[in-house]
Amino acid sequence: MNENGILPPSYAAACGRERAAKLRPPEHQVAGHRASANKMGPLVDGSGLFYKPLQAGDRGEQERAFYEAFSAHAAVPPRIRDAFFPRFHGTRLLPTEARPGEPHPHLVLDDLLAGLQAPSIGAITWPPSSPEPYVAKCLAKDRGTTSVLLGFRVSGVRVLGPGGAVWRPERPELKALDTAGVRRVLRRYVSSVSGEGADCALAAAVYGGEGGVLSQLRELKAWFEEQTLFHFYSASILLGYDANAVSANGVGGGVRVKLVDFAHVAEGDGVIDHNFLGGLCSLIKFISDIVSETPETPPLAP
Amino acid sequence: MNENGILPPSYAAACGRERAAKLRPPEHQVAGHRASANKMGPLVDGSGLFYKPLQAGDRGEQERAFYEAFSAHAAVPPRIRDAFFPRFHGTRLLPTEARPGEPHPHLVLDDLLAGLQAPSIGAITWPPSSPEPYVAKCLAKDRGTTSVLLGFRVSGVRVLGPGGAVWRPERPELKALDTAGVRRVLRRYVSSVSGEGADCALAAAVYGGEGGVLSQLRELKAWFEEQTLFHFYSASILLGYDANAVSANGVGGGVRVKLVDFAHVAEGDGVIDHNFLGGLCSLIKFISDIVSETPETPPLAP
Repeated sequence: MNENGILPPSYAAACGRERAAKLRPPEHQVAGHRASANKMGPLVDGSGLFYKPLQAGDRGEQERAFYEAFSAHAAVPPRIRDAFFPRFHGTRLLPTEARPGEPHPHLVLDDLLAGLQAPSIGAITWPPSSPEPYVAKCLAKDRGTTSVLLGFRVSGVRVLGPGGAVWRPERPELKALDTAGVRRVLRRYVSSVSGEGADCALAAAVYGGEGGVLSQLRELKAWFEEQTLFHFYSASILLGYDANAVSANGVGGGVRVKLVDFAHVAEGDGVIDHNFLGGLCSLIKFISDIVSETPETPPLAP
Repeated sequence: MNENGILPPSYAAACGRERAAKLRPPEHQVAGHRASANKMGPLVDGSGLFYKPLQAGDRGEQERAFYEAFSAHAAVPPRIRDAFFPRFHGTRLLPTEARPGEPHPHLVLDDLLAGLQAPSIGAITWPPSSPEPYVAKCLAKDRGTTSVLLGFRVSGVRVLGPGGAVWRPERPELKALDTAGVRRVLRRYVSSVSGEGADCALAAAVYGGEGGVLSQLRELKAWFEEQTLFHFYSASILLGYDANAVSANGVGGGVRVKLVDFAHVAEGDGVIDHNFLGGLCSLIKFISDIVSETPETPPLAP
């Protein structure tokens, strides 16, 4: 292993020299541990790469193994891989503030928010539900959230409003959401007003239309109705759009729908992932209700 | 309450006089308790009605309440109610062999197998998965079956083969099935040979084509993607076809796809039933794989 970790040599050579100067915690993280003096957390390089520290125990190794298997799997349609997953660029040993002198392996992935000037982000997380014994424990934990009832929970939101105002509910607040609360947060995510109001002015542009969240989720769903390769327990969907672009144009706005967090992915063994698919259909229903209730074009300012 | 129980008077008057002579345990039952000298079980009248004893505890009352709510619910599309559910004709007090002198209330439902000369039947059961505390217990119970992994389990099969041969695996055998075993049973269900072989000669006629199991399941799925009225924990889908008709005609054959067993239905409260829908998609995938693998018309006899 060289100073660039176990990254493919050609890639490492191209990027290695610029590395140290640029790495920093991502500005827009909404879920997971943040990097600090005491804790390892993800880093970005500002030119499109995201470095995720390999998690402790089996989880890190399992996530790495998933990325390797998934990246190379002949049965994964390239369109699905490109549209809905971060690209995997191998692993790299990096120094960390938390443990000086002990470089730690990081997964090198696409920075999913690169190119968005004012990213508004949402993270939706799936319950663990494998047939292993730890299910009962996880179920008990999830009973406090909407996971069991809705098939998913909202695990992070960060909305950039007009004038740079940020709406970012705290994690305990998100964990305590009931069904009505989840609906409110999903409406607020596509609203142009600051504070607690929800005009859903961006719903048509972000959720609806060609390339919107809804059409992307439906494409993902069509794959999940067929694919029996992987079961994505505890994975998340990251939603992102560019609050600047979407306000300016009314349509488009760099809408992103990406799967992340694969420490608990299991082999599908010829069976579809009905756990993920059920929650995905549930999320689609919430979002399609919001699109149906709101006008196709944002209302004109009075 | 009169001698006919709480059935609507007009209906009771029309049917009451013929009742006692004709009631008998159904010949083709594949799951649930059978009526005997010691146990109450369902009865049929041979002219299209099925009498299901109200279950003990809350379950009976909950099932009755579901049928009443469902039958009258303005938001249930009539096509869905007619195609996929037994019609509910109220309840009726009936004498039982198990408890002489103590008439017991029965749900009066359509006999879903009426009109099939040689019914081949399958029962597919969904796991309980409500957010109530009994989930963990049920999960443990289900871990012995395919419920957690596949989202459903095969709870009963009875296939009428050529010359009247019957294939009917025992319940412990069905409970022990793994994924490959479920696939084998679903193939055997549409095979014309007797014994353990599976030629899938009836797959195109029973599973495929217009009005086949697959197209009916997909119609049901489309409803489940939208409906937020009910969550069908522990319900079953009853599959039926007429082994005589399907052999004779090659297509058609009275294929039936019906939901039954509603003692654990809960209100949807604006959320889709992702638990049922996920298992339904899983079942659809198994069956569509069998249809894809088999020729459209049954092979000619050599």
